[in-house]
Amino acid sequence: MVMKLYDYFRSSAAYRVRIALNLKGLAPERVFIHLRKNAQRAADYLAVNPQGLVPTLVTDDGAVLTQSLAIIEYLDETHPAPPLLPAAPLPRARVRSLALAVACDIHPIDNLRVLRYLLHTVGVAEEQKDAWYKYWIDVGLEALELQLSRDPATGRFCHGDAPTLADICLVPQLANARRVKMDLSPYPTLTRIEAACQALPAFAAAEPSRQPDAEP
Amino acid sequence: MVMKLYDYFRSSAAYRVRIALNLKGLAPERVFIHLRKNAQRAADYLAVNPQGLVPTLVTDDGAVLTQSLAIIEYLDETHPAPPLLPAAPLPRARVRSLALAVACDIHPIDNLRVLRYLLHTVGVAEEQKDAWYKYWIDVGLEALELQLSRDPATGRFCHGDAPTLADICLVPQLANARRVKMDLSPYPTLTRIEAACQALPAFAAAEPSRQPDAEP
Repeated sequence: MVMKLYDYFRSSAAYRVRIALNLKGLAPERVFIHLRKNAQRAADYLAVNPQGLVPTLVTDDGAVLTQSLAIIEYLDETHPAPPLLPAAPLPRARVRSLALAVACDIHPIDNLRVLRYLLHTVGVAEEQKDAWYKYWIDVGLEALELQLSRDPATGRFCHGDAPTLADICLVPQLANARRVKMDLSPYPTLTRIEAACQALPAFAAAEPSRQPDAEP
Repeated sequence: MVMKLYDYFRSSAAYRVRIALNLKGLAPERVFIHLRKNAQRAADYLAVNPQGLVPTLVTDDGAVLTQSLAIIEYLDETHPAPPLLPAAPLPRARVRSLALAVACDIHPIDNLRVLRYLLHTVGVAEEQKDAWYKYWIDVGLEALELQLSRDPATGRFCHGDAPTLADICLVPQLANARRVKMDLSPYPTLTRIEAACQALPAFAAAEPSRQPDAEP
């Protein structure tokens, strides 16, 4: 059985897993779940992932893994090189904390299903929805910029001079911000790290626009 | 230096860390950050945690750790008994995924700052805010109930017969649901696990109502 990734080009949670797979040199089979067309609500996908979210990774043993951060920690535990977390507990906590500041405190609030609920159930205007989207990104990035810029543990990447789980979460979040043309000039540390990441083939090849299911 | 937890009785992220500390037999000094009075926006707290969120754990070495899941993984790595994650990569991924389904996909969308933005910036009515709160809990709990009820890996607790990170995230989320009197009868597996957790002193002692800063 071959490893299989349920993916969607524009999902930033799936984008994280694509980066991790590339860094580990793994190339699973890909199945594309078109979120905007609600393919994630189809019975056959819900049977795989009851949350109806992407990504899902099916291992070569047929085990079904959900939640991008759990998948990436699994990949790191089963394919240790190159490591995506530092070795010692304190720096590991730092990297996980930076990753979670994106994965818990920015991304879920701006997720497609939340924006749809805002528009269709709460009934907000398109501009209010857009302001919401940008507001939560700015709140999150401001704190991250402060945290990263003042800490000597920050290097070429979020933690030292090799990419970690923190960079894997940061880059897709910045891509979302760029897609809606946000001003990223208040975040010079974040954009410097983003550039260092994009220079690596593993990050570049994971970009939404370079996926087989990409749309304009 | 003594370990110090910045805490708030009603924060479910802080509640998670309290449970983990109790399971590990650790009793840090406590500092209470009154979220409803905006103590998390005070300059002295922002100097500790630029995100202005609780919890924050300051270790006995003076290291500052943020993000509840990063803190709990740190506690588990530095105080291995009893373990809060299984030993093998696949079950570890399962437990982390269940934990993240709460910590990423329910809790942040219903966080106090998001509800405040809905009320004061979007300008929704109190009832719309309440419906929002319950909607995201139901969406998340439905998927969790399905995932846990159909998987033989579920035991007395979310994973087997000892509490893990998954239970540590589940119980505070159910407490939030109970506080707003949601009907939990569609979630028999979740409430059965909750009861098993509440029977443990480590969980019971972490309950919001039993904290020194608790309010009616």
